[in-house]
Parts: sequence; C-alpha cells; structure tokens
Amino acid sequence: MTKRLTIALDAMGGDDAPDVVVKGANMARNRYPDVAFRFYGDEARIAPLLGRFAKLSAVSRIHHTSVTISGGDKPSQALRSGRESSMGLAISAVKDGSAEGVVSAGNTGALMAMAKLLLRTLPGIARPAIATVLPTVKSECVMLDLGANIQCDARNLVEFAIMGEVFARTVLGLPKPTIGLLNVGEEDMKGHEIIREAATTLRRLSLPIEFRGFVEGDAVWAGAVDVVVADGFTGNVALKTAEGIARMYTTFLRSAFQSSIVARIGYLLARRAIGKVRARVDPRRYNGAMLLGLNGIVIKSHGGTDVFGFANAIGVAVDMARGGFNDRITEEFERTGTIAAPVQQKAAVS
Amino acid sequence: MTKRLTIALDAMGGDDAPDVVVKGANMARNRYPDVAFRFYGDEARIAPLLGRFAKLSAVSRIHHTSVTISGGDKPSQALRSGRESSMGLAISAVKDGSAEGVVSAGNTGALMAMAKLLLRTLPGIARPAIATVLPTVKSECVMLDLGANIQCDARNLVEFAIMGEVFARTVLGLPKPTIGLLNVGEEDMKGHEIIREAATTLRRLSLPIEFRGFVEGDAVWAGAVDVVVADGFTGNVALKTAEGIARMYTTFLRSAFQSSIVARIGYLLARRAIGKVRARVDPRRYNGAMLLGLNGIVIKSHGGTDVFGFANAIGVAVDMARGGFNDRITEEFERTGTIAAPVQQKAAVS
Repeated sequence: MTKRLTIALDAMGGDDAPDVVVKGANMARNRYPDVAFRFYGDEARIAPLLGRFAKLSAVSRIHHTSVTISGGDKPSQALRSGRESSMGLAISAVKDGSAEGVVSAGNTGALMAMAKLLLRTLPGIARPAIATVLPTVKSECVMLDLGANIQCDARNLVEFAIMGEVFARTVLGLPKPTIGLLNVGEEDMKGHEIIREAATTLRRLSLPIEFRGFVEGDAVWAGAVDVVVADGFTGNVALKTAEGIARMYTTFLRSAFQSSIVARIGYLLARRAIGKVRARVDPRRYNGAMLLGLNGIVIKSHGGTDVFGFANAIGVAVDMARGGFNDRITEEFERTGTIAAPVQQKAAVS
Repeated sequence: MTKRLTIALDAMGGDDAPDVVVKGANMARNRYPDVAFRFYGDEARIAPLLGRFAKLSAVSRIHHTSVTISGGDKPSQALRSGRESSMGLAISAVKDGSAEGVVSAGNTGALMAMAKLLLRTLPGIARPAIATVLPTVKSECVMLDLGANIQCDARNLVEFAIMGEVFARTVLGLPKPTIGLLNVGEEDMKGHEIIREAATTLRRLSLPIEFRGFVEGDAVWAGAVDVVVADGFTGNVALKTAEGIARMYTTFLRSAFQSSIVARIGYLLARRAIGKVRARVDPRRYNGAMLLGLNGIVIKSHGGTDVFGFANAIGVAVDMARGGFNDRITEEFERTGTIAAPVQQKAAVS
C-alpha cells in the first residue's frame, strides 16, 4: 500500500496560471488517484476552475493569498516579499510537513532562492542543483546542474554526481547508474583544473558509483552515461543548445514536408511514425526540473508548458517522494561523510 | 583578376590520408581553377594518387617528408619533433610565403600549437581561437572559440568578438554582422564576471560593431546573431551538443521511417525534401574550422571527413585568403589599438 501523498502547487506561477495548474493537477489526479493537492494562490480564480473537477476537488484544498511573484522579479525581491506569496506558501507547506513536495511554474531564480531559504540544503550538501531528465538514443539520462550554480568548485561537482546517481537509482530505477563529467574531451588531461580535480576525487572516493570519467557534448545524446554532471553555466548552455537544435530540425523538416505535393503526401503516410519520434523527444514529457539537494522536494515546471507538461512535473514530484529520494541522498552522504574533506585540498592532476 | 593562390596541404593528416586529401584537392581545383597546391607528406603514397588527376598535377608540387604527427600525439610532442612533419612543413610554407593558407585534417592540438609557434599571433591578439560556420534557422552564424582556450579572460572574449566580426564581414560577406556573447540568460546581470566584463567592454568600445549583448544556447540556432562568442570550454560543449542532438534526431527519424511499410513509402515520397534538409545541415558542408588570430591562414578539417568535406575546408582557406581576412583583422586592431587597456582593468558590473 502506498502512502497518501500531498503535493503543494504554486497556483499562480507560469504563463497560463492558474488554468494550467488546476487542469494539470486534474490530469495528474487521474494518474495518481491517491495523491492530494494544496493550491496556493488567488482563491477567487482557483475555486471556479477546481469546481469543474469533482474528483480533484475532493482531494484538494485552496489556501488563499493575493501575493504573487512575477516572472521578472529578482531572487532578492522574492526573498524580501515572497514568504506570503503563492510560491512561498507552497514551499512552506513542504517545510511544515503538510505536503511531500512542491511544484511551481514560476520564476526559477525566485523558486531556488526561496526554497534554499525556507527548506535549507540537506546535510553535507553545499549547494543545490537543478536537474532534468533528457532523452538519449539509448534511453534517458539525468543532467545537472542546469543553471543554479554558474561557478562551481570540485566539491560542488562531486556532490552533483552523487545526487544525480541517487536520482537515477531511486527515481529512474536504474540499478547501477553510470556517471560522467561533461568536458571537452575524454582524456584525463582535458578541461580545466576544477573538472580534473572533481574527476580525481570521484575516482578516489570508495563510493559504490560507476564513474566513467569525462564525457563529451555529443556522447551525452548517444547515451554514454546515465548521469551527466556539469557546472550550471555549461549545463545550461548544453540544455538550451539541445532545445535550439531540436527546434531548428523541426522547422527545417516542417518546411521540407510542405515544399511539394509529393513531400506532403509522404508526410501524411509517415505521420504516425514521425509522431512517435516527436513524442519521444517531447519537451512536455521531460517537463519538471528537480531542485536537488534541498531538504524537501521542489519541482520547477517550465513557465510556458501546457496541461500535459504540468501534469508530468507533478509526476516527477510524486516519483521522487515515493522513491524516498531525499532519505537516500542523506544516507549516501552520511555513509560517505568524508567527501568534502579530500575535495577541498588541491588534488594532484597529472 | 584574382591573384593566383597557393594552398599548402598536410597530406598525411586525417583518418583517410593521403587519399581524401588528394581527392579533396582535386574537387577543390575544379571549383577554383586558379588555385595551386603543395602537398606535404610521403611522396611514394601521394604521387600515384596525384597521377590520376592531370589538371590537379599540373598545379601541384609534392614536398616529401616521412615524418607525420599522429592523432594521439600531445601538442608538446608535436612541438618537439614536428617541424619536419607533413603538418609542420605545410605550416612553414605559409610562414615563408610560398603558400597563402594551410589545410590539415590532423590532430587539432598539435596544429594549434605548431601554428602558434611557427606563425605567431597577429599584432594585438593574445590568443588565437578556433571558429566555424554553422547553420541556423535564418541562415548561418560563425561561432568561436570552440576549444583552443579552455579558460578565457574578458580580453580574450573581446578579441574573439572582433575576429568573428571581421570573419563574418570579409568571408561570409555580411555588411553589418551582429555579435552576441553566449550566456545563460539575456539580462545584463546574468553569467559570471568575465562574460559581464567582456560585455561591458564591447559596449564601451567605440567600435563600429553591432554588439547585441548576451545570447542563450537556444537563440543561437534561431539565428539571433551572426557571431557567437564563447570561451573554448563552453563553445566546444555547445558545438558537440549540437552535433549529438542532430545525430540523435537522424537516428530517431531513420528508425521511424523504417517502422512500417506505410512509413517507408512516406519516406520514399518525402526523400527529396528530406535530402534538402540533410544538405542544409550537412556537417561536411560546414567542414573547415578556422584558427583565427594567427599570422597566416590555418584551416583544420575534421579528421574523419570525406572528399567533399575536405574540398570544403580548402574552400574556406581560399575564401579567407581572397577576402584578405588577416589584413582586415590587423587593420581593425590597429584602428582600435586601445582595446587591451580598458579590458584589463576590472569593469564595473552592476
């Protein structure tokens, strides 16, 4: 029997809030009938939407607040005035134990800043990271950090590796996930000092992890490893480059299929097969970036996603809560409590 | 009347050398009938290949050497023993003025190290960069650095921006190329200090360049700017990510088109249109990375390219020589001789 979970939702975050949030929750409720929801935001706008879904209403509560954090707010502004906002209250629900996870499609910087302030990081973790699951030729991988930490030291990268590994094990269900550091070449001497130091530490630590060394930008998508670790600057550029190239291909193919009558007929015949490819790489399917390393489950949905995408982000929160992700992380860091020490020394680089 | 150009070729560099080099030169000769070639390498292997192409033979000379630099050689090894190698001699031909440019499909690190040693950088340029032309939804862009400089300061980034701008103007023929710094967001406060300092300098300099600030990884492929500037680590990851995603899409589409008889027929009908997309993003078409900032034209061909790809790399060398790229660069740096000074100070970052 699975425990009844409660997910807190920032009902006012995202381009089409609260509409997408409520409808996304309804879709998620159909998938996870034993999950309850708490909506934080403008009751006058949420209640009528919720009223349309009887089964969802039965497992939901609305917590009114008229304060919202806008997409343009800086993290510092959010910290000053955000505690009573829909985002702040939803995070607080995780802190006080009334919810097992929070999902917001609001401002990423504000969400990270407020979640760090309210929830704090897990013991042993210096900095949380943003992670997401991405498609590869083989299956999927988890990549982190995607932008929370623009500059990282070796210790941060080592911690990201361990968090990514636990995520792949507990949420993706991989028995022995492989890990790689994103670099400009595979050889030991490639890259800058920080990444080489992180590699040295990951090799030295007697962790039960499958560290495969460095992985290049192209090998990631061939499925070279299950966990791809990068500093937030590099990870963000890699993720957005991937999105940009995918969009470029889609644009080129669309115009190619419309370029002649014969090509159009070809498209109609191949449409079902092309639809499967589209589904496989659908960004909505991979919606729901995880803020890992916090003392609570926090999921960031893309601000412009639709109902299907928002439901998937809720699904990530549910999977993490059920997989006991944060307990596993804490165990891992307790077991390998010595990680920080050797990393802080300069590791010898050949 | 165009001046008769001579291109020096490292006949032994690349996976299928000297075969691809000689055949690639033959294809290039058909495109550029007034270009002459010098082949550096094992005469016993080059001569029989060259003998098959009468017109190419008429404009070619072979310079024998039995020394070659292998793909696994470190730059330091290449510097110690490489001067008499096919790569070293081909670069020297540019130095002593017997060729206007050199093309090699050999080891990138060795090529950069030896080219720096033999040719030196252009006046005012601290570090050369690797650049390439890439397809975008709108047309094309030039991206640099792609891996020559793993860590860069603001001055390096500013110099890359100016070199990229001159390349876009003289070789791509764009009258007023736009420039962007690859970053994790568009806002001024995004990214790390080095990139913000570079942006501040580029805004302050009274250069006649169209600096557009920061550009994100996805916007690059939408054609946001004509010149994309990054440190070598970030640029390399972005380029390889783009290659990897392109390959993943191709794999997915291929298997989709083979997934049913109807899809196969659809593919056959749409094949011509899909072929146009493939041609538009064909990596061979964009083969030929430029080592910019050196006192001579040096082009790196992909080691695994074919005859068509190698011919295109020669084409890049020809275009750069004809466009007077290095003279324009030198003029630009003389005109704006004050670049280095303000950049070396810490710029105020808001």
